[in-house]
Amino acid sequence: MNVLVINCGSSSLKYQLLDMTNEEVLAKGLVERIGIEGSILVHEAPGQEKVKLEQPMKTHKEALNLVMAALVDPNHGVVKTLGEISAVGHRAVHGAETFSDSVVIDDAVIKSLEECSELAPLHNPANLIGINACRELLPNAPMVAVFDTAFHQTLPGEAFMYPLPYELYEKFKIRKYGFHGTSHKFVSLAAAKLMGKKIEDLKLISCHLGNGASLCAIKNGKSVDTSMGLTPLAGLEMGTRCGDIDPAIIPFLVNKGYSVEEVDNIMNKKSGVLGVSGISSDFRDVESAADKGDKRAQLALDIFHYRVRTTIGAYVAAMDGVDGIIFTAGLGENSTTSRAAICSGLKYFGIVLNPVENSKRGQATIISEKESKVTVMVIPTNEELMIARDTLALVK
Amino acid sequence: MNVLVINCGSSSLKYQLLDMTNEEVLAKGLVERIGIEGSILVHEAPGQEKVKLEQPMKTHKEALNLVMAALVDPNHGVVKTLGEISAVGHRAVHGAETFSDSVVIDDAVIKSLEECSELAPLHNPANLIGINACRELLPNAPMVAVFDTAFHQTLPGEAFMYPLPYELYEKFKIRKYGFHGTSHKFVSLAAAKLMGKKIEDLKLISCHLGNGASLCAIKNGKSVDTSMGLTPLAGLEMGTRCGDIDPAIIPFLVNKGYSVEEVDNIMNKKSGVLGVSGISSDFRDVESAADKGDKRAQLALDIFHYRVRTTIGAYVAAMDGVDGIIFTAGLGENSTTSRAAICSGLKYFGIVLNPVENSKRGQATIISEKESKVTVMVIPTNEELMIARDTLALVK
Repeated sequence: MNVLVINCGSSSLKYQLLDMTNEEVLAKGLVERIGIEGSILVHEAPGQEKVKLEQPMKTHKEALNLVMAALVDPNHGVVKTLGEISAVGHRAVHGAETFSDSVVIDDAVIKSLEECSELAPLHNPANLIGINACRELLPNAPMVAVFDTAFHQTLPGEAFMYPLPYELYEKFKIRKYGFHGTSHKFVSLAAAKLMGKKIEDLKLISCHLGNGASLCAIKNGKSVDTSMGLTPLAGLEMGTRCGDIDPAIIPFLVNKGYSVEEVDNIMNKKSGVLGVSGISSDFRDVESAADKGDKRAQLALDIFHYRVRTTIGAYVAAMDGVDGIIFTAGLGENSTTSRAAICSGLKYFGIVLNPVENSKRGQATIISEKESKVTVMVIPTNEELMIARDTLALVK
Repeated sequence: MNVLVINCGSSSLKYQLLDMTNEEVLAKGLVERIGIEGSILVHEAPGQEKVKLEQPMKTHKEALNLVMAALVDPNHGVVKTLGEISAVGHRAVHGAETFSDSVVIDDAVIKSLEECSELAPLHNPANLIGINACRELLPNAPMVAVFDTAFHQTLPGEAFMYPLPYELYEKFKIRKYGFHGTSHKFVSLAAAKLMGKKIEDLKLISCHLGNGASLCAIKNGKSVDTSMGLTPLAGLEMGTRCGDIDPAIIPFLVNKGYSVEEVDNIMNKKSGVLGVSGISSDFRDVESAADKGDKRAQLALDIFHYRVRTTIGAYVAAMDGVDGIIFTAGLGENSTTSRAAICSGLKYFGIVLNPVENSKRGQATIISEKESKVTVMVIPTNEELMIARDTLALVK
């Protein structure tokens, strides 16, 4: 049974076709610049050469049409007909309080998704465009929406409510939703397996550290706190995002003559390691500048490590304990030095890294010492596989 | 040697006269509604009846004149002449990065204080008015400024820098300053004494919990992190303040039609336990409503306890350990239930409260079990005494 996974952005589209009998990737690809000059599709299948197709794609539907054509192409295709695609799993960003799990898409779900768009005005409309285009092109394939926010719907009130007037929650649904839920769920399940324990018996902290970054406290398999909030701006220092700051800084800057839009743009696109270092939003560039003695680059990294470390501490308190800590996503999977810096100040919690294991890359592995009270792990995330699994489970 | 301690607000003035040979309070009082109709001075001295004086006080100088008159009054006064006041200690709110300790006030200090006003436009100008009035009325008494921010000037860069563009720090001095420093310093010194240890050997977390609330991580006697920020809005849920929220909520509300001033006002004056409960900013009212089954009152308290608990966890991570936790200020000193709720989920850190000791009030006492790895204490704060001590030390 083949499942197609679709992740639609406002001008982009990522896809993966998986054979769910063995969870193998048959093909994957990326379309960029949809509706903009220079639209391009890059398609790849294991054992085959990459295919690049540059031609105008005015809409997501046109782009999807070319994706479908690539999948069934006699030369570089991987299936004979579109009928071999049994189901489609869509990444959906914001499920608000409506969706606490993945869901088979019908007209009612589409209506609800439209209602959630207000909370994710950049992402949900793009997701909807992808869903509608797929429904037209694959009218017989059942579709499933898998939400970034769903895994966090188990947060207790004290963790998801902001200490703002209660009316703002009632009127505008202002609360903590959290994101990266699909990734946190995937790696926590894999971590339990790696530890040889039941997820129901574990207290885990998942560190999804990429250009966007969030932590999640997972108690008995359920998310009980996470560092992103109403939006993906909150929490840690990220590539270009500031994370949590004194909220009074915004009125302070407005008093200095900035517009709210400018401040919003600064917080989302000019802050984080880019803003502090002045060098790059890419942690690798900043790490290499710090190695050469750049002080602001080092400061940017120190802030990042400090915030991850103290958030781990906060979540140990939230769960009154921790059995395992997971590092995942680009930086979490690959930066030996970041993992070492984050864990270096956590001996009181019973965390001792094994430097040899910590120097390995790209595979699910335990990187703590045997005597470490807490098991520290690197687990490569795989959101597409998680979406395909949820899709399979729901359409079966 | 008598030291007068002055705490000037924009329309109020608190004072205490202390005999520093035995740290005894000779007299204390409060002037309210300065420059507003209904100005009133309440003066009290131990063993004497309270004196209330209602008469127009247009300026802080007029108010101070009446305070001086009350102190030397033949009936209810406590000194014969103003010459018996050897020094004056002024509470000053914001010392920016200029003042990392208390300082004897001279013209240069006044100029620097004026420069710091931009960061505390409500508080520093009021402090300056008080200082200038005192200099006129007591021209021979040396004056000392004791800053709310000074104790936190030891924060390392990763704790005080926001992940915003570095230029905002250079240009506007946007960074974490922290407040309540005089209180955190006082109780941490008292805690070391109570534990029979040197402050230099201890990792302490001080919880100043009142209508304004902040936590402080104190390692070897130095503040290494604190929960308030550029302003006293940041960090915990407070009486009417929201503390940390996703900063994107502000642009979100502005998009909904709120002005920045309205949002600022909501965050500072309509949020916190008042905003969540809809009942009161006074924790006692909210606790009693929660006891009667009010769900939003309970939620307001749950959020408060949760934030204090997780911030304790963050600071244990920041210091890689903790020897003592201190509760102080109105709520910290008096709310048995809050202390129990905060500590209930911290067994992993080695924290075990003694319910009998925890039920005591209003005195410096250890409230944890003997076998508790971490010593938990209640220590009544005394900012006036701390100001008087710093004043004495500097003018001696």
